[in-house]
Amino acid sequence: MPLVRIDIPADTPPQTIRHVADLVHKAMVGALNIPIADRFQTISRRMRDELVCTEDFLGITHTQAIVLIQITLAPRPTELKKALFSAIASEIEHHTPFKAQDVIINLIEAPRENWSFGNGIAQFA
Amino acid sequence: MPLVRIDIPADTPPQTIRHVADLVHKAMVGALNIPIADRFQTISRRMRDELVCTEDFLGITHTQAIVLIQITLAPRPTELKKALFSAIASEIEHHTPFKAQDVIINLIEAPRENWSFGNGIAQFA
Amino acid sequence: MPLVRIDIPADTPPQTIRHVADLVHKAMVGALNIPIADRFQTISRRMRDELVCTEDFLGITHTQAIVLIQITLAPRPTELKKALFSAIASEIEHHTPFKAQDVIINLIEAPRENWSFGNGIAQFA
Repeated sequence: MPLVRIDIPADTPPQTIRHVADLVHKAMVGALNIPIADRFQTISRRMRDELVCTEDFLGITHTQAIVLIQITLAPRPTELKKALFSAIASEIEHHTPFKAQDVIINLIEAPRENWSFGNGIAQFA
Repeated sequence: MPLVRIDIPADTPPQTIRHVADLVHKAMVGALNIPIADRFQTISRRMRDELVCTEDFLGITHTQAIVLIQITLAPRPTELKKALFSAIASEIEHHTPFKAQDVIINLIEAPRENWSFGNGIAQFA
Repeated sequence: MPLVRIDIPADTPPQTIRHVADLVHKAMVGALNIPIADRFQTISRRMRDELVCTEDFLGITHTQAIVLIQITLAPRPTELKKALFSAIASEIEHHTPFKAQDVIINLIEAPRENWSFGNGIAQFA
């Protein structure tokens, strides 16, 4: 059910982009226990001037190699959201050249009735 | 008032893209009774690796020719949202090469005071 | 904390795009009193057929030179949201070729626990 929008520098190699997308999905399956088949993602390749990120906020320093992830999903308790953040950043840091400090995540919560997965039906309403 | 974001394969002919955008708007006018002039849409042409969709979820099989539609709109009752999903998928299936099963829709609800349609004024606050 | 998504015509000069992004941030700092360092923005350059805007809605006439701004932010009172709309449109009108009537803004509110600014931590949860 979640819709994942990933903004990533345009000069990232395609295989790395795919890897990031796979890892975000893996983290979501692990932390939120969503079905593996529940995968809907968009990737936006951004030129340097299309992805603007503070150099330093809350004591966290950012490079130019940012991954910005905005996820629209059904409401979740705070603890699960924390687990999701941790899992996404950890997977990306351990398996790609991106650093955990450069993984920025925002969640938008929308109720289950707000989704149609095909055929014009609200499958969870 | 709704803001409609359409993600569509980059190899879709421009006239088909325009048609999809027109049909989504037609469905919104019909199902939600919004004014015809209330139209704000973005189109994101996505390369193959920029639009990731499960092959099969909830018994619905997807091709590579997905139309992903995310709509931010004022809150609506469930029945209207169901009618909107149905109208969008039906219009697209009947008038374009896309299949109803490949029309994925998500709604984000935001109150009317969260919009400015120009001149820096919250016209509905 | 806000995530700002700016959609702008692709033929806008890069320095004007940068200026718009800077002005939106300046307006947010001024109207919402967010830290200057709290800046996260994406810019989507849109071809003519990728940014669809009504020609006339609510008595406001639009040109083809639209700036569409969607901001995900922590909840704010109505008066602050009105001040934000006003500040953004005013800054853009006074310092760029875009007209205030062509500045379209939508806000999505998400609680503070829905953000991670790096390292997989929900800094405000």
